[in-house]
Amino acid sequence: MSEEITILGKQAKAAARQLSQLSNPQRNEALFSIAEMIRRRKNDILTANMEDIQTGKELGLSESLLDRLKLTPERLESIAAGVEKVATLPDPIGEEFDSRVLDNGLRISKRRIPIGVIGVIYEARPNVTADIAALCIKSGNAAILRGGKEARRSNRALADVVAAGCAAAGLPANSAQLVHSTDRSLVRALLRADDYIDMIIPRGGAGLHRFAVENATIPVITGGMGVVHIYVDKAADPANVVPIVLNAKVQRPSVCNAMDTLLVHRAIAADILPTVAQALIDAGVELRCDPRSLKILSDSFTVQSATPEDFDTEFMALIAAIKVVDSLDDALDHIFAHSTKHSEAIITEDYAAATRFVNELDSSAVFVNASTRFNDGGQFGLGAEVAISTQRLHARGPMGLKELTTYKWVVLGNGQIRP
Amino acid sequence: MSEEITILGKQAKAAARQLSQLSNPQRNEALFSIAEMIRRRKNDILTANMEDIQTGKELGLSESLLDRLKLTPERLESIAAGVEKVATLPDPIGEEFDSRVLDNGLRISKRRIPIGVIGVIYEARPNVTADIAALCIKSGNAAILRGGKEARRSNRALADVVAAGCAAAGLPANSAQLVHSTDRSLVRALLRADDYIDMIIPRGGAGLHRFAVENATIPVITGGMGVVHIYVDKAADPANVVPIVLNAKVQRPSVCNAMDTLLVHRAIAADILPTVAQALIDAGVELRCDPRSLKILSDSFTVQSATPEDFDTEFMALIAAIKVVDSLDDALDHIFAHSTKHSEAIITEDYAAATRFVNELDSSAVFVNASTRFNDGGQFGLGAEVAISTQRLHARGPMGLKELTTYKWVVLGNGQIRP
Repeated sequence: MSEEITILGKQAKAAARQLSQLSNPQRNEALFSIAEMIRRRKNDILTANMEDIQTGKELGLSESLLDRLKLTPERLESIAAGVEKVATLPDPIGEEFDSRVLDNGLRISKRRIPIGVIGVIYEARPNVTADIAALCIKSGNAAILRGGKEARRSNRALADVVAAGCAAAGLPANSAQLVHSTDRSLVRALLRADDYIDMIIPRGGAGLHRFAVENATIPVITGGMGVVHIYVDKAADPANVVPIVLNAKVQRPSVCNAMDTLLVHRAIAADILPTVAQALIDAGVELRCDPRSLKILSDSFTVQSATPEDFDTEFMALIAAIKVVDSLDDALDHIFAHSTKHSEAIITEDYAAATRFVNELDSSAVFVNASTRFNDGGQFGLGAEVAISTQRLHARGPMGLKELTTYKWVVLGNGQIRP
Repeated sequence: MSEEITILGKQAKAAARQLSQLSNPQRNEALFSIAEMIRRRKNDILTANMEDIQTGKELGLSESLLDRLKLTPERLESIAAGVEKVATLPDPIGEEFDSRVLDNGLRISKRRIPIGVIGVIYEARPNVTADIAALCIKSGNAAILRGGKEARRSNRALADVVAAGCAAAGLPANSAQLVHSTDRSLVRALLRADDYIDMIIPRGGAGLHRFAVENATIPVITGGMGVVHIYVDKAADPANVVPIVLNAKVQRPSVCNAMDTLLVHRAIAADILPTVAQALIDAGVELRCDPRSLKILSDSFTVQSATPEDFDTEFMALIAAIKVVDSLDDALDHIFAHSTKHSEAIITEDYAAATRFVNELDSSAVFVNASTRFNDGGQFGLGAEVAISTQRLHARGPMGLKELTTYKWVVLGNGQIRP
């Protein structure tokens, strides 16, 4: 165990105990204070960020990485506004539920409480520092944040502002602490600090998620990876097909709820595929086709032949795999074999097909006649999104503030003993 | 990855897909069929168990271990009746909740579904084989069971009966599979089979739990360990103190919700401690006292001096540590420093003290004027108990059938795309 992690862990645990006892107005006051500090110390943060950008350029970071790293006055204002928005969300803490009175008179209920200390490991984008700190504080949790080394000056400036905002509102300055060392071995130490940390959220690519799962002794929320399927049933309303497929693929191709594989029932493949292909190709999408879809499309369009790996790939880009299937069963079997359990959609007007698709699949979200792009905390009305979970414990799909809570049983008696 | 685990894992995944689509009556029919098979094949099971007992005696197993291992006609009947009782519990699957209609007309809800494949690692008691298989089947999950090698013949006989019962009712015979090899390295392989298993439940001592946490790449439900506190406040009703403390310590000292440490407010320590000590000592409890309680008790009673370790020990025996505290704050600080977050109780008639105790502690169950022995699935009315969780994700305290489920988001649209 690294000494830095032990110190941060002890401080976080002490802060968590204090945070769990604060009222919603007190937690909100800290968020408003953080937002104000972000605005007041704008120049410090932007200067730190410029230094990160300068170092990044010298190290030859890609343009897209530099763009994710970059803070502008507008982006900083949007971060501050985001922190304020979290303050306006309903308090996730304190609700009692599943209450009952036992025959012996004991009154029992579950009470929603913070999880405790949440460890978050993320990559380039410095806005995560403020976003996650705000979500954790709102839900009464302490946070330990480990950002990417490319953003270390920006993250430090933002973490200082978060600490100052907390302190100004009477919250522990250690409510959301940044791991300062950029030593990679600290990530492993963080993942094994189960004496101090109750949950790990990795925000990054598949490699980070796998590293966390392999090394953590703390429960990890895994997710964010999606090999996403849309199945166009033989009873699809043709008017729905192009809009939904196009939206799911091209509206934001770099995200996890974008479509990767299009499955089309053979009965309508010859009719519908050329129209769909035209729309996708016009939008700049490269199509990788199984033999049957290739046969339908290759005369009129420039398309590729799909490799077996294409059907297990999250493209994160303007690429789609296409396969013709014989039946709904065939589609379900393909999805069971290739899905990462993120999001799957069916386009159909057939009640039985829609029902079977929804009943039989077990992905985090299953859609009928709607774009998979809706699998998102904001779209689902959660107010905020902490992560998207594709694991099966604790939370599935978009995680909001409620998913940053747990519960304890409260048992009120007047002398009951167990017979 | 061991070949046996890979084969079991693939079969379990296929079984889980089938199980998830069965109706509650179909799942129940399998449970009744298993119960009937247990009765019909009673002699086979008892013969296998006698061989285990014989081997255990030759290996010099302790009397208490041999007793936990032993099956009798009565115990077998109670196992069969337990399986039938699980069938009569409400179906935990299928409920839709948190439903809403979004402004764009999308109808979204969470639907409760089985977790998938559950791995259970347990020690000597062969009844766990039938109990856990029944709970998993009832909740639509497939199970992979790894019992202790002392019970291997008994477990195999019970697993055969479970498979036969499933098959007779038209369920996959692989619904609940036993790991046959008793090679210890298979436990590690099981813990890392995240391609096939969705959740691990270790049922055993602290060593097994720690091994699971250290080695698993699958989410682990940890729990069952409890350093349990009762705090006798200065405003305690003396009539409540002896009954609750005695019940919590001696009613079943070998379990995790039994009291380990008694904290007493200094204002009433001299009055109440001798009565409590007398009752505990009469019940055969050894008392390990901090300096202040030692001073009160040592003239009249044979008591020990507590070591610092005693206050971090789950005794699982007729032993209790005693400490005099200066205040409620002192008690809370002691509990925060030493609790394993299992169960804690306060005895008081003071509203503010009871409220602070309940609000400020974050153990899986907090009690006012009641015995900690109630922290139990049966007592809380869950109908069955899968495990007691002291971790903070997914489930806390007693886990019933509902805690063997997860959810998926079901999103019903008519052509919606994301703007």
